[in-house]
Amino acid sequence: MAAPGENLRINGDRLWETLVQMAKVGPGVAGGNNRQTLTDADAEGRALFQSWCEAAGCSMGLDALGNMFATRAGTDPDALPVYVGSHLDTQPTGGKYDGVLGVLGGLELLRTLNDLDIKTRHPIVATNWTNEEGARFAPPMLASGVFAGVHAQDWAESREDAKGLRFGDELDRIGWRGDEPVGARKMHAFFELHIEQGPILEAEGKDIGVVTHGQGLSWTQVTITGKDAHTGSTPMPMRRNAGLGMARVLELVEEIAWSHKPDAVGAAGHIDVYPNSRNVIPGKAVFTVDFRSPDLGVIKDMEARLKVGAQKICDDMGLGVEFEVVGGFDPVTFDPTCVSAIRDAAERLGYSHRDIISGAGHDACWINQVAPTAMIMCPCVDGLSHNEAEDISKQWATAGADVLLHAVVETAGIVE
Amino acid sequence: MAAPGENLRINGDRLWETLVQMAKVGPGVAGGNNRQTLTDADAEGRALFQSWCEAAGCSMGLDALGNMFATRAGTDPDALPVYVGSHLDTQPTGGKYDGVLGVLGGLELLRTLNDLDIKTRHPIVATNWTNEEGARFAPPMLASGVFAGVHAQDWAESREDAKGLRFGDELDRIGWRGDEPVGARKMHAFFELHIEQGPILEAEGKDIGVVTHGQGLSWTQVTITGKDAHTGSTPMPMRRNAGLGMARVLELVEEIAWSHKPDAVGAAGHIDVYPNSRNVIPGKAVFTVDFRSPDLGVIKDMEARLKVGAQKICDDMGLGVEFEVVGGFDPVTFDPTCVSAIRDAAERLGYSHRDIISGAGHDACWINQVAPTAMIMCPCVDGLSHNEAEDISKQWATAGADVLLHAVVETAGIVE
Repeated sequence: MAAPGENLRINGDRLWETLVQMAKVGPGVAGGNNRQTLTDADAEGRALFQSWCEAAGCSMGLDALGNMFATRAGTDPDALPVYVGSHLDTQPTGGKYDGVLGVLGGLELLRTLNDLDIKTRHPIVATNWTNEEGARFAPPMLASGVFAGVHAQDWAESREDAKGLRFGDELDRIGWRGDEPVGARKMHAFFELHIEQGPILEAEGKDIGVVTHGQGLSWTQVTITGKDAHTGSTPMPMRRNAGLGMARVLELVEEIAWSHKPDAVGAAGHIDVYPNSRNVIPGKAVFTVDFRSPDLGVIKDMEARLKVGAQKICDDMGLGVEFEVVGGFDPVTFDPTCVSAIRDAAERLGYSHRDIISGAGHDACWINQVAPTAMIMCPCVDGLSHNEAEDISKQWATAGADVLLHAVVETAGIVE
Repeated sequence: MAAPGENLRINGDRLWETLVQMAKVGPGVAGGNNRQTLTDADAEGRALFQSWCEAAGCSMGLDALGNMFATRAGTDPDALPVYVGSHLDTQPTGGKYDGVLGVLGGLELLRTLNDLDIKTRHPIVATNWTNEEGARFAPPMLASGVFAGVHAQDWAESREDAKGLRFGDELDRIGWRGDEPVGARKMHAFFELHIEQGPILEAEGKDIGVVTHGQGLSWTQVTITGKDAHTGSTPMPMRRNAGLGMARVLELVEEIAWSHKPDAVGAAGHIDVYPNSRNVIPGKAVFTVDFRSPDLGVIKDMEARLKVGAQKICDDMGLGVEFEVVGGFDPVTFDPTCVSAIRDAAERLGYSHRDIISGAGHDACWINQVAPTAMIMCPCVDGLSHNEAEDISKQWATAGADVLLHAVVETAGIVE
């Protein structure tokens, strides 16, 4: 297929203004966003995105998990669509670009093709995947996981949030369940534009990250059981302090992650102690250990050392401990043809670029199992993400969307 | 004054049945109680206690912080009353006896005096102090502290729970604010019967603990500030993980407490991390360190070492740290005459006993500042308290209330 000329560019001002408008939906407390999945704010963001897609002449599809598909027709009725997209949901204290740039970058490329009246052989579909973040309903990338056949739909719908509300019920409540069977669509390819969520591109002054691999992830929820007791009247030798056991396991997690430097990481973001009262020694601590590495063997090693080490810590302290796998995926190798299309696009457009491994999980990591897939990353300030202070520049967003446009148009085929 | 004869005993079956009835109000989830202060359950418990006191012929008093006073008249109109009592509020996952035994033991001694038509020169008042636990509104022993002039009433009323509800507003809401000025009453003496909440009496097979001193307490709320960031994409060397900083400070707290063995203790029962999401490195951790010792110098040393040590831990990790004192009281020496009355009563009744230091804070620790005061302890199973599994035997409760009866009657003076 013919590649587009280097003069083909998206409209960076329009993309930026669209990002600004979406950020007004579900504002956070510190300048970012709290548009968690299946909340009223999520519904409002979906409606806004749909209105923009319809204004761009797209036909809308909606599947039974709320995944949204905005289609710009191609010229060949037999050609499978090229998909682009990411997610509009955010963390509780999330940024304005994580996920959103990939969805609205997809919309911008459709608008640009409209402006220039460019026809493609394959249809192009801009997608919003439901519950990528997993902050409200674990695990993350839930609906793209069902789409790719990784999870059962029933299981996904039965996921509960901290209040005990079910994913399926909340999807019905906000009115965004469609009729289309999940995963029925076949894809010619899938491209996801995303902010790096790490510091490498900015530090090296690169415009574009060509994502060749995705880190694997392992989430183990650890429950340590001691005995609730009075903080004043219980002598130190008779305590079974689940909070202290947790502290020692957190130190172990740090030690394990460093032992596989420089690529592996580990931490616990979710931590709860019970009954969480100032004068009761915690009788229970529940927390989730997040390990990641691009090497499956390293992930398995970290998981195994966590179990052995935490068991020993707890045995020594007279504490009980249980482990539950609550999320995970293997490291990902993206499709070489799609990766090349991205690298070639960056080169053709004159953007500086480097190959990179994605540290975060993304919908593309699951879609890669059912379609040729690759990702484009753009820098973000200080590598900061999952934080209301997350920031990118208009120039970075524009470069990323330009590369997305070129890679997609080359893959979808310009009709001369 | 004349001491009562050894044949004077409370009615242990009636006391036990009264404890059983009160435990039905605000049941917990695991056989104990959740009757936190100023909740609807607290109001229900208060009404039940008042109905029993009125049935025993007492006149009721209620002060502006909801402290309840049930008076059995004495024969001398100029004699100050002897007070007994404790608290009816519980921890969120509390037991059936912590506090409750002291209030209902007081009621039982009034009933016993009625049964036997014994008159005393001094009136006797059974008291229920508001918010001893401090679980919902910190600090603990809040209303007895105002009574003793330790806290200002305005400040007490402005305390907020985790939902931001104010103590004063919740007191009004449940309808238990009285007209009487807080602290206006003068006391001849105050006696508090309480379960040990520790393992010593049971381990040594003693019926009665004669409480000579109370441990001092120090509560420091520690706030560690890092940076929210993605758990996957942030390289280990660039993390500012407030949760890990907290883990290291928890280990320091343990080390400091052990360094002052055997009497000092330390732990954190309250622990929260933010934003508490599985794939966000905690940007903030807030937790409360509880240190106790019968030696004021030790408490000051532990506080100082916490601040210096936590500051160093956080400096080394690029974290911010702040300290706020959110509760505390100095070690207490109880009144020698009241202590002797308790020891003599145990001896006279033939109960085994030993002197003991209270590890927990109690209303008696504040009242000791404005009246001659002492405490009686009875054993509890496994030393367990602040736990729904908290347990005592009817025999232990009976022995404690017998000693309370004798010490109080001797102090109030039998009118022959």
